[in-house]
Amino acid sequence: MRVYQAAAMDASQLAKVTARPRIDFTSILGTVAPIVEDVRSRGDDAVKEYTAKFDRVQLDTVCVPIEELPEPTLDAETAAAFDVAYANISTFHTAQRSPPLEVETMPGVRCRRVARPIGAVGLYVPGGTAVLPSSALMLAVPAAIAGCRTIVLATPPRPDGTITPEVLYCARKAGVTHILKAGGAQAVAAMGWGTASCPKVDKILGPGNQYVTAAKMVLQGSEAMVAIDMPAGPSEVLVVADAGADPTHVAIDLLSQAEHGPDSQAVLVALPGVNIEAVQREVERQCDLLPRAETTRKALSHSCIVQVGSKEEAAEFSNRYAPEHLIVNVEDAESWLPLLDNAGSVFLGRYTPESVGDYASGTNHVLPTYGYARMYSGVSLDSFQKNMTVQSLTWQGLQALGPHVAKMAAVEGLDAHRRAVTLRLGLSSPDKFD
Amino acid sequence: MRVYQAAAMDASQLAKVTARPRIDFTSILGTVAPIVEDVRSRGDDAVKEYTAKFDRVQLDTVCVPIEELPEPTLDAETAAAFDVAYANISTFHTAQRSPPLEVETMPGVRCRRVARPIGAVGLYVPGGTAVLPSSALMLAVPAAIAGCRTIVLATPPRPDGTITPEVLYCARKAGVTHILKAGGAQAVAAMGWGTASCPKVDKILGPGNQYVTAAKMVLQGSEAMVAIDMPAGPSEVLVVADAGADPTHVAIDLLSQAEHGPDSQAVLVALPGVNIEAVQREVERQCDLLPRAETTRKALSHSCIVQVGSKEEAAEFSNRYAPEHLIVNVEDAESWLPLLDNAGSVFLGRYTPESVGDYASGTNHVLPTYGYARMYSGVSLDSFQKNMTVQSLTWQGLQALGPHVAKMAAVEGLDAHRRAVTLRLGLSSPDKFD
Repeated sequence: MRVYQAAAMDASQLAKVTARPRIDFTSILGTVAPIVEDVRSRGDDAVKEYTAKFDRVQLDTVCVPIEELPEPTLDAETAAAFDVAYANISTFHTAQRSPPLEVETMPGVRCRRVARPIGAVGLYVPGGTAVLPSSALMLAVPAAIAGCRTIVLATPPRPDGTITPEVLYCARKAGVTHILKAGGAQAVAAMGWGTASCPKVDKILGPGNQYVTAAKMVLQGSEAMVAIDMPAGPSEVLVVADAGADPTHVAIDLLSQAEHGPDSQAVLVALPGVNIEAVQREVERQCDLLPRAETTRKALSHSCIVQVGSKEEAAEFSNRYAPEHLIVNVEDAESWLPLLDNAGSVFLGRYTPESVGDYASGTNHVLPTYGYARMYSGVSLDSFQKNMTVQSLTWQGLQALGPHVAKMAAVEGLDAHRRAVTLRLGLSSPDKFD
Repeated sequence: MRVYQAAAMDASQLAKVTARPRIDFTSILGTVAPIVEDVRSRGDDAVKEYTAKFDRVQLDTVCVPIEELPEPTLDAETAAAFDVAYANISTFHTAQRSPPLEVETMPGVRCRRVARPIGAVGLYVPGGTAVLPSSALMLAVPAAIAGCRTIVLATPPRPDGTITPEVLYCARKAGVTHILKAGGAQAVAAMGWGTASCPKVDKILGPGNQYVTAAKMVLQGSEAMVAIDMPAGPSEVLVVADAGADPTHVAIDLLSQAEHGPDSQAVLVALPGVNIEAVQREVERQCDLLPRAETTRKALSHSCIVQVGSKEEAAEFSNRYAPEHLIVNVEDAESWLPLLDNAGSVFLGRYTPESVGDYASGTNHVLPTYGYARMYSGVSLDSFQKNMTVQSLTWQGLQALGPHVAKMAAVEGLDAHRRAVTLRLGLSSPDKFD
């Protein structure tokens, strides 16, 4: 891991250190767009063909109501672990419900904001190199709490055409209504356009590889009329460590990001007194022990250590980097929170590795990456609902507010807007333009 | 206005009646993408050239700090009207602040959600056929309440190169920091990429024509790293009327939507007892009185009346249409709210024309159109901030939760994730893989 001094970096070095790997979406879009279009026109048949081609699985049925699938059996310890995760995620996301907002902005002018569930949502749970039942919980739990009527979960089938039991366990528990046994762009397209077996959804959420992301981008703003959660890039962590942080813990936190894939980003921001050499040694040693050491080492090759002189300098660098995950492994971590602006999720203190949020603390692990933490939130209850505003005026309210509205409409040259008020108030005649 | 019976419509007729005009973005994107790219590479010079070409204005300076512009003078009545709008919009959007959420999901596992302002935002306020100071308030007021540090407001200059005084008045009052004297794709690109005079923003919000919308779509997900508020289409209203609704009021509400432009959509859902002919007559008569009668009539040509047999049928049609604005001009309008799912903003009762929300009730008038009310909310305080989740575990918390996390990480084959927990708990040895 290369080492930089924050104070010594000029603007261009800083830009380089905070940059993410460039993703060439143009060529990926060229691959993905025809698949999306093919699924639009040929539906389930196209999904079956791409699944045979990419996943080497022959599907009988593409999308099925979840009650048609056999109940999965997990060993007790595994079930208990996912049950705990379910409970904590439910607790935190249920607490995100907010009561309807109601304000009388002027006497007789009542304004409200009420939440409504999005009718149908599509959840993408990646398969491939790892099975990710935790993502099923992270997406389906808030969808169910929001009250979405149709919840389709898409995930690539196993070689025998079935779904990983842990994913199915989590999907059932959380309230998923349909399982789409497909992955990749074809799965995203099936949910976005709808097929004979798969309900058309209003929004598609969840992490995925570059093809999944590209398919979401193709659908967003297309005639499919579908929203997506957020842009996605490789996963990333920024660890802030002080002299008291255990080098082994710092190292394993960096590695737990790096093991996600060769594009993963892991950055250490080291406060004065951190033994950089000890951390580097531990990173090497712990990495060598891992079954995924090769992947992990690739990710480490573009990771780095940034040495800072103070808390403020560390926070400034972190805010500029805007990491998906921010681990603050320092004494008195709580005092750092007011300084932190841009991060998907923050892990405070010595006993809060990223893993706890990835699985079971209760927070969501679908988070903005690639610097998008500057302007996007992670998935939450809000991701599965929309707010309607509501206003209702009494006669007195319209009398008080109406003349001002009429004046502004006149300034903007919108006479029907003006007359919608003045005709009601009897200030205009319906027979002539006044 | 053509008249349909909801009960008699088959699926394809229903699809046709609820469809919006198709927008051919492919050709518009072909025009807009090179402008966006040109502004990226040549900055202010490109903005000046496009402004000279499209707006026929020679700019000396493109973007200026707002304090460098002269204080605008408005007549007292106009200023008072915008002051009332400002106060109500401030009141309603300030009430949208939510205190930090905090939950202990398990003993020793503390999860929080905290809001942070988006650092720099770009607000697009259309010019052209109408000046729209109200949009300046709708965008800048919540941006300032959220605490955005940099608030750039872009709006096309007048022929003499200055900004409409009412827009400037609202911008100053609300806390805008920079005025970008440009419109169209060139303005959106300047904010998205940043130029020598214009700060680069993290998110671009606000209504605009098809070129503005296309430019936002080009930038979203590009290397500019910028978010947008929502997709945009022509403005629209759905009016539900019962027998007691005054045909003149129903007519002027439909017309106040139609006058926005030839693409505007106005739909009347008529409950039993509505005198359809009287409404049609009033629409004709009121339309003829308007200075913008010609534009308005174009919009009316694709508007329609849908007759329904019941409240439930009316709500079902409205939810399917998912209008930007929904006027419920009926007796006991309040009882309708629980039935209404998909709408940008709802206007309840006899005394609540859409105009009041367009200007001054306090709700926002930047709303989802084109059916996107199914899954998008209108602009609100949330549009200018993002939420970070925060977790902090005590030693006891990690002891309770950690073993479950380790189990799930093992299921997913993510060993560094597992060891980040077990090494902290002393359940693994740093010297070997266990």
